[in-house]
Amino acid sequence: MDLTRSPLALPFPAMPPIDGVTLRIARARYKAWDRCDLTYVELAEGTTIAGLFTKNVCCSSEVELGREQARLGRARALVVNAGNSNAFTGWRGREAVEQIMAQVAAHLGCEPSEVFVCSTGVIGVPLPTDRAQEGIAAALDAPGCSWEDAALTIGTTDTFPKGAMAQAMVGGRRVTLAGIIKGSGMIAPDMATMLGYIFTDAAVEPAFLQYCLSAVNERTFQCITVDSDTSTSDTVLAFATGRAGNVPLASVDDAGADAFAAALHDVCRQLAQLVVRDGEGASKFITIGVTGAETDESARRIGLSVANSPLVKTAIAGGDANWGRVVMAVGKAGEPADRDRLSIGFGGHWTAREGQPLADYDEAPVAEHLKGREVQIAVDLSLGDGRAEVWTCDLTHGYIAINADYRS
Amino acid sequence: MDLTRSPLALPFPAMPPIDGVTLRIARARYKAWDRCDLTYVELAEGTTIAGLFTKNVCCSSEVELGREQARLGRARALVVNAGNSNAFTGWRGREAVEQIMAQVAAHLGCEPSEVFVCSTGVIGVPLPTDRAQEGIAAALDAPGCSWEDAALTIGTTDTFPKGAMAQAMVGGRRVTLAGIIKGSGMIAPDMATMLGYIFTDAAVEPAFLQYCLSAVNERTFQCITVDSDTSTSDTVLAFATGRAGNVPLASVDDAGADAFAAALHDVCRQLAQLVVRDGEGASKFITIGVTGAETDESARRIGLSVANSPLVKTAIAGGDANWGRVVMAVGKAGEPADRDRLSIGFGGHWTAREGQPLADYDEAPVAEHLKGREVQIAVDLSLGDGRAEVWTCDLTHGYIAINADYRS
Repeated sequence: MDLTRSPLALPFPAMPPIDGVTLRIARARYKAWDRCDLTYVELAEGTTIAGLFTKNVCCSSEVELGREQARLGRARALVVNAGNSNAFTGWRGREAVEQIMAQVAAHLGCEPSEVFVCSTGVIGVPLPTDRAQEGIAAALDAPGCSWEDAALTIGTTDTFPKGAMAQAMVGGRRVTLAGIIKGSGMIAPDMATMLGYIFTDAAVEPAFLQYCLSAVNERTFQCITVDSDTSTSDTVLAFATGRAGNVPLASVDDAGADAFAAALHDVCRQLAQLVVRDGEGASKFITIGVTGAETDESARRIGLSVANSPLVKTAIAGGDANWGRVVMAVGKAGEPADRDRLSIGFGGHWTAREGQPLADYDEAPVAEHLKGREVQIAVDLSLGDGRAEVWTCDLTHGYIAINADYRS
Repeated sequence: MDLTRSPLALPFPAMPPIDGVTLRIARARYKAWDRCDLTYVELAEGTTIAGLFTKNVCCSSEVELGREQARLGRARALVVNAGNSNAFTGWRGREAVEQIMAQVAAHLGCEPSEVFVCSTGVIGVPLPTDRAQEGIAAALDAPGCSWEDAALTIGTTDTFPKGAMAQAMVGGRRVTLAGIIKGSGMIAPDMATMLGYIFTDAAVEPAFLQYCLSAVNERTFQCITVDSDTSTSDTVLAFATGRAGNVPLASVDDAGADAFAAALHDVCRQLAQLVVRDGEGASKFITIGVTGAETDESARRIGLSVANSPLVKTAIAGGDANWGRVVMAVGKAGEPADRDRLSIGFGGHWTAREGQPLADYDEAPVAEHLKGREVQIAVDLSLGDGRAEVWTCDLTHGYIAINADYRS
C-alpha cells in the first residue's frame, strides 16, 4: 500500500534529549518489510511511570500486563513492536510478552514488571517469539537514536512521524517533556488507536504522575476521533526519570506542580492533534468548539457526536456548510439540548441561531473558510457554562481506499 | 446527482389494496424537480393509529405534533412531503404543518389532530406554505394511485421504491398488512432516517396497535444501521382501518392477536431490511448474528457496534475477512464480553474460537463467501442466551460520493 504523507502533516519538531532516557531501534522483521520495527527505550534507575489504557474489553495481553505493571509505578525499559498487535492471540500472545519482559529484565538486572511492552499492527497473529528475541538482542547492541527515528519506528500506517515537547520550571529547575505517538485509524476516545509515550526528566511521584496524566487525558486524548473505532491495544505511558533534580512532585500544592501539569497538557494536546492530522484519508483538520452545554462532559459528548457523524465529516470533505447535519448530530448525542436555543457556525460565522437559519446569512465567507485545511465548527447550546473542544478530520475516499484493503 | 439503482435492490412486490385506504399523489414542487413529491392518504372513519418517532432532540415540528396526535389514537389522513424536511425551521415550520392539518381537516370534516404530516429532505428551510397548499389541493383532485407510486413519491435519495406485505387470519377473517418506506442515509436506530407507513384492514384498538408496533420495533427498525446517524424526522406510523370486520384486537390474549403481531413483525422486518439494501453506496447486505450474550439487548448493542464500525464496513467492502476488526468492535461496545470465550465467523465458517484464531482455519471458503452480495458475520460470546440479528451494509466510495455533495 502506498501511503502518501498527510496534507495536514506538521514537520517533526526539534526535541532535546531527556536525561535518563536512551532510545534504540532495530529490525525484528515482524512483517515482510525492510524497516526498523522494534523500539527499545532504556530508562534510568528510579524512573516513575503512569499509564492510560484502552477500555476495549478485547484488549491485548500487553494492555492487561501493562495496566498491572503501571500500578507499581516503576519502570526501567519500554519495548514497542510495530507490525503485529499480538491482540486476540490467547496464551501464545501472553507468553510472547512475558518472554520479552524476562529478556530485558535479565539484561538490566531489574524486575520483569519494570519492563513495559506495547505492540501495534494486525490483530490475531501471535507475536513471533524468535523474531522478538533477535530484535531485542539487536536493539541492545544498537547505538542511540533520535526522537524522530523512534517516532518513525513505532509507526504502522502513519504517514509522518509525530513528536512534541514542552518545558516548565519546577522548584527552580527547568524540566523538559518530550513525547512521541503513533496512530492514524481506529481512533476514538477510550482510547484512540494509538501508542503514545511522554518522557520527562522531572522527578514526579508515580501517584501524582498518574493524577496529572488522567486529568490531562480528559481534555486531550479523550477529545479526538477519526472513525469512532477503538483499538484493542491503545496505551499512553508517561515516564519521569527525575534527573532534573527537582524535589519530587507529589501533590498539586507542590511548587511547580501547576507548571508541570500545564506542560504535560501542552505535550498531550499536541500529540493528540497530530494523530488526527494523520487520520486515514484526512484532508481537513476540524476543530469543534461546543459552548453553553450543561456541563463540560456533556459538551465533550456533543462534540464527539458531531465529530463522529459520517454525514458531517463527508459534508466537510465536500466543502459544504451543511449545518443541518450538525443539528442532527447534536440532537442524537443523547445530551441535554434545546432545538430552539441552538446555534451553529463555521469559521467564526453563525449560520443558524436559536433554532432557525439566520435571515441575513451570507454563505460566501463560510464557503471560503471551508476551502481551507483547518475548519472550525461552533455549536452553542445556550443552556449553561459547559464547554469542550474536540478534534477530528473529514471522511474522504482516502479512508475507504486505505481500509477496504489493509490486511490483505 | 445521478443515483443509480442499488445493486441490492429487490423488485417491488405485488401488493393488494387495503380496504379503507386511498392513496393519491401530486406535484407540490418542493424542489426544482418534475416529479410527484406530495403523498396524500385518506383513511376510513374509525381508523386507529400507532407511531414510533425519532429520539433526536432536534426533531422537526412534524415529529413533535405527530407524537402528540398519535396518543389520541385516531387518524383520517396522512400527508408526506418529500424534498424538504422542514426541520430546524422554528415557528415558521410549525405553522406550515398546522396549515396542512387545517386544510385537510376542513376537506374531510375531521379534527386537525386526525391529520398526520411528515416531511423529509433538506434541514433548515421552512416548508413553503403556498406550495403545500396547492399540492394538497392537487392531490385531493388526483385519482387513486398504486402502492409503488406512493412508495416512489415519499422517496428522496432512495434508488428504488420499497414495499412489503403480509396477511394473517384474525378471528376467522383474513387481514392484510401493506407497508411502504423511504430512507437510504442517516440510518441508525432511534430511528433510521426513514419514514415508514403500515396500513391494515384489521380492526385493532389503538393501545394494542401501539403495543405491537413498539414490540416489533425492537427487533426490526432498531436493528438496522447504515451510518450511525439519526435523523430529525424519522417516523413509523401504523394505521388500522378495521374494514376486515374482525372483532377489534385489544390484548395479546385475543384470538388472532399472535397472528397479527407476527404479520406486523414480518412487514416491519422486510421494510427495515429494504432500507439497508438502499444504504448510500451499499454494495453488500450484511447480517450480523450475535449469540451467547448476557441478554438480547446486550446482543443487539454488540451487533450494532459491529454494524456501525467503519473499519468493519470497509473491510467487508474490500472482501477482507478481517475478523480482528470484528473483535475490536465487540470489545468497544461497552457490553459484557470475555475475550477468551469469543468466537467470530463469516458465512457459516468460524475463523476464531475462544479468543484465538483457528489453527486449521481455511480462508478460501470465507473469501468466496465475502465475494457475494449477502454477507453473514457470526459473533458468539459464550456467556448466556442473549441473541440478536442486526442488518447493515458495507461502506464504500459510493457513500462518500453521495454525501460529500448532497446539499449543494
